[in-house]
Amino acid sequence: MSDFEEKVAASNFKTLRLNRNGKVLFVSIDAPPMNLLGPALVTDLVSLIDLLEHDESCAVVVFTSANDDFFIPHVDVLKIKEYRQAAARLSGVPSIGLLFRQLSLLNVVTIAQIEGQVGGAGSEFVLACDMRFASTDARFLQMECAFGNIPGAGALQHLTRLLGRARALEVLLSADDFTAAQAAEYGWVNRTMGADELKSHVATLAHRISRFPAEGIATVKRRVNDIALPPMEAIRKDSDLFGEASQTEAAKLRIAHAVELGFQVSQATELGLGAMLGRLDDSE
Amino acid sequence: MSDFEEKVAASNFKTLRLNRNGKVLFVSIDAPPMNLLGPALVTDLVSLIDLLEHDESCAVVVFTSANDDFFIPHVDVLKIKEYRQAAARLSGVPSIGLLFRQLSLLNVVTIAQIEGQVGGAGSEFVLACDMRFASTDARFLQMECAFGNIPGAGALQHLTRLLGRARALEVLLSADDFTAAQAAEYGWVNRTMGADELKSHVATLAHRISRFPAEGIATVKRRVNDIALPPMEAIRKDSDLFGEASQTEAAKLRIAHAVELGFQVSQATELGLGAMLGRLDDSE
Amino acid sequence: MSDFEEKVAASNFKTLRLNRNGKVLFVSIDAPPMNLLGPALVTDLVSLIDLLEHDESCAVVVFTSANDDFFIPHVDVLKIKEYRQAAARLSGVPSIGLLFRQLSLLNVVTIAQIEGQVGGAGSEFVLACDMRFASTDARFLQMECAFGNIPGAGALQHLTRLLGRARALEVLLSADDFTAAQAAEYGWVNRTMGADELKSHVATLAHRISRFPAEGIATVKRRVNDIALPPMEAIRKDSDLFGEASQTEAAKLRIAHAVELGFQVSQATELGLGAMLGRLDDSE
Repeated sequence: MSDFEEKVAASNFKTLRLNRNGKVLFVSIDAPPMNLLGPALVTDLVSLIDLLEHDESCAVVVFTSANDDFFIPHVDVLKIKEYRQAAARLSGVPSIGLLFRQLSLLNVVTIAQIEGQVGGAGSEFVLACDMRFASTDARFLQMECAFGNIPGAGALQHLTRLLGRARALEVLLSADDFTAAQAAEYGWVNRTMGADELKSHVATLAHRISRFPAEGIATVKRRVNDIALPPMEAIRKDSDLFGEASQTEAAKLRIAHAVELGFQVSQATELGLGAMLGRLDDSE
Repeated sequence: MSDFEEKVAASNFKTLRLNRNGKVLFVSIDAPPMNLLGPALVTDLVSLIDLLEHDESCAVVVFTSANDDFFIPHVDVLKIKEYRQAAARLSGVPSIGLLFRQLSLLNVVTIAQIEGQVGGAGSEFVLACDMRFASTDARFLQMECAFGNIPGAGALQHLTRLLGRARALEVLLSADDFTAAQAAEYGWVNRTMGADELKSHVATLAHRISRFPAEGIATVKRRVNDIALPPMEAIRKDSDLFGEASQTEAAKLRIAHAVELGFQVSQATELGLGAMLGRLDDSE
Repeated sequence: MSDFEEKVAASNFKTLRLNRNGKVLFVSIDAPPMNLLGPALVTDLVSLIDLLEHDESCAVVVFTSANDDFFIPHVDVLKIKEYRQAAARLSGVPSIGLLFRQLSLLNVVTIAQIEGQVGGAGSEFVLACDMRFASTDARFLQMECAFGNIPGAGALQHLTRLLGRARALEVLLSADDFTAAQAAEYGWVNRTMGADELKSHVATLAHRISRFPAEGIATVKRRVNDIALPPMEAIRKDSDLFGEASQTEAAKLRIAHAVELGFQVSQATELGLGAMLGRLDDSE
């Protein structure tokens, strides 16, 4: 086994399937039944980021989903404390926002190849990647506002900078589905294309970048991050606000009500999540 | 009468027609003959913002125009001193830029539903709203540069942040008409759609947001404003520069010349304003 | 001769053809065989900026190319030291990034009318202009990363602000060709249109702006620059990083290898530059 393979074996991934091809590492997210971001997936992301920080055999990482319908639809809302604690293993702080920010700071280039539903913290994960390409039938959703909360892991910061004030507010306050075409028009993703083209486009791009000198790539990323990466304090503040709001009785009741309506437990509900959220009524 | 209705009655609006439906307040701008932003409309906007700052019965406000051809085409250029003074009632400063900034800071969500011509301070008003949706036949124009002045109520600040340096300079320096499609492509508005779809889209979105918990909405707006709302000092500086430039003899001559050509007095001229401004020549 | 014509004669331009029409100055870039940005063109740009800083007879400058296939494809990579030294004549610092930043600070309005291939420092030049309009068959490329370097004359700064983190990283890290349509979608240029329309659109816009009062234009530019022009220190830092990286043995070998493959010496190679760069392999 190579040094890299030994590290992978030691990481004992449960929800990530790794496949290295040259200097490109393909990482398939495989957390059945629908790739919720829970303690297991967060634990594996911590291990992966730690591995990539100390390894030079990979130049580019491509994230895909093993599930056709879901990339990462959102966190496991019944295990908020647990997954936040799992994130603390890397930075000492129970915040997936800070975890994702460390992903953005890696020297390796990260590309999200998005198919299926991506929302909540899943959207925050892809926003922390360096680039995002989406299949035309992918769907995007930032749902926290429907529950009286805010995105706590970076989406508010990234979307405001990428989309501008008005479009970010539309995405954040509507808590509704966005098509891939709309997401591309707003700048939520780099581009959208058919599923077949997507796969070859991303692989070609990843291999192309992997052949360029590492030092130029690292300097470009560092200089771009100096301008455009949301500051750590801002991410941490959003994370704290999310954590506090998620612990209130009202928040717990709202989530319990949504779970009754199929949220997180029914794949059919999740595939029409925007519509379902529109039927929640806080004044009921 | 409800508490809200009493406040509305006390406000004695002359140019705004209010119609509340659940927690959504529809405000139709009705200042004949063509919705110029003059002392009366500014006075009413001051009253409305004051009312919304101290009322919790509305969650979302939708601004529409009672005039098919004009949303707000620009200020009343013959009453600059008067409308600026009317704005001072809220903040103590004679600046509609600061007034509009208070609109952006409200906890309630504001949506502009734009039909007809919107320009100058009308554009600055919709840029201060949280979202902007435009009918496909709406037209946009930032005309100050044609008169040797700058937008003094926030458009320069907002457009530069939303459109980037080059497209903002194109809009600001050309002082020309932009179609709704172009405005959407540049990010001046969120989206454009046909007039029928526009009405139902905005109403559906407004009611959807109005059912979400107020505290999440307020936190989202506060955090987004922390990132993307132009700073008060910048707005105030632009406002001062506009005020000074509008008091010069040259500016008064230019406006008088434009009025001779139909500016502000002829609806036909106003509907082809971009073309008319191109015929002004400062070196004549 | 007018005062302006005397200054032009004194400047003794070798690579720029000037043609003034009213207050609009058309500047055609003519540095055969393919408009590389080398010492001669930099020397002329220094003279032109110096001339424009001290002249009030021009209100708008339009940059075009005398070469149908190339606007400015990149610097002369065999004369990096020489062209940087030529740039030092204006600011004292051997940095074309600082030179281009002085272009952005001029009171006159600058418009790039782009046909053919524009890349590397050519892209950085047009990014420093106030507006950029491209022919539908223009092509864009930021190639520094393929050589282990970064754009050192402002493109990293401008693109990150205009395109956002993910799309800027795609452009910078891919070092690949972008069509004019893609460049317009991403905000790299204001708009794209057919070559015939392009010429008349830019001329009409330039003459329109040239008739507006100079003081309003200057104030608009100053206020927009206050918000969106990359800071001098950031440009200078990128410039230093570029200078250092270009002096390493590895960088010189990479460039020598690329020149063997036709880079800079073969017009056919230059017209398919993105593909050629993809065949460079640093690990070979």
